[in-house]
Amino acid sequence: MSDFNKPGDVFLADCPARLAVEIIADKWSVVVIYALSKGPRRHGELVELIGGISRKMLTQTLRRLAGHGLVDRRAYAEVPPRVEYRLTALGTTLIPAIELLTSWAEHNGTAILDAVEAGLPA
Amino acid sequence: MSDFNKPGDVFLADCPARLAVEIIADKWSVVVIYALSKGPRRHGELVELIGGISRKMLTQTLRRLAGHGLVDRRAYAEVPPRVEYRLTALGTTLIPAIELLTSWAEHNGTAILDAVEAGLPA
Repeated sequence: MSDFNKPGDVFLADCPARLAVEIIADKWSVVVIYALSKGPRRHGELVELIGGISRKMLTQTLRRLAGHGLVDRRAYAEVPPRVEYRLTALGTTLIPAIELLTSWAEHNGTAILDAVEAGLPA
Repeated sequence: MSDFNKPGDVFLADCPARLAVEIIADKWSVVVIYALSKGPRRHGELVELIGGISRKMLTQTLRRLAGHGLVDRRAYAEVPPRVEYRLTALGTTLIPAIELLTSWAEHNGTAILDAVEAGLPA
């Protein structure tokens, strides 16, 4: 196990890397960041795009991602007023990892369902 | 948004891909899968390696990952008895995504902490 427990390691409970894992390893964070990966979106567009997310949960997730410097909220002085959410430069650096994760999920979701069903009592 | 909402998409609430995101987008799942990426480990080794995880939380996480076909529990008839956990073939396919995620966290954890501190009232 000598490869592990270096400084800056996700295994160390008090390390910034562990904090980062906690922020991004969250179902809604992954889906919202992925939804923003193609460009800015309005709140209502995100609700429509993401099945099963409530307006409140979306607001909380966006606020949390903004507080961690991953998402930017931009309000335009138009009539009617327009508010858009976009990834920050830091948030954009997450796209490759999120795409790999969602692509894995799209390819292996069925295998996971099969494993769940195989483990259930007949 | 025409690129999104294809069949098998993480945006669809009832899709296997969404289930897969829910399973892997979990702090402890990410850390445990990463810990197993270098080979089989015993329960006690994992507790020692992963800072801040309780024995109970580790047991629950391993059971959950096993139930979804990502981790295999193997008991050896030795004295004293030995039990090891390892990634299944399906679990192994997750390694590139988990490594990209943990590497991102190791490189950007400090930037996230900076964003949090910049957003706090002075």
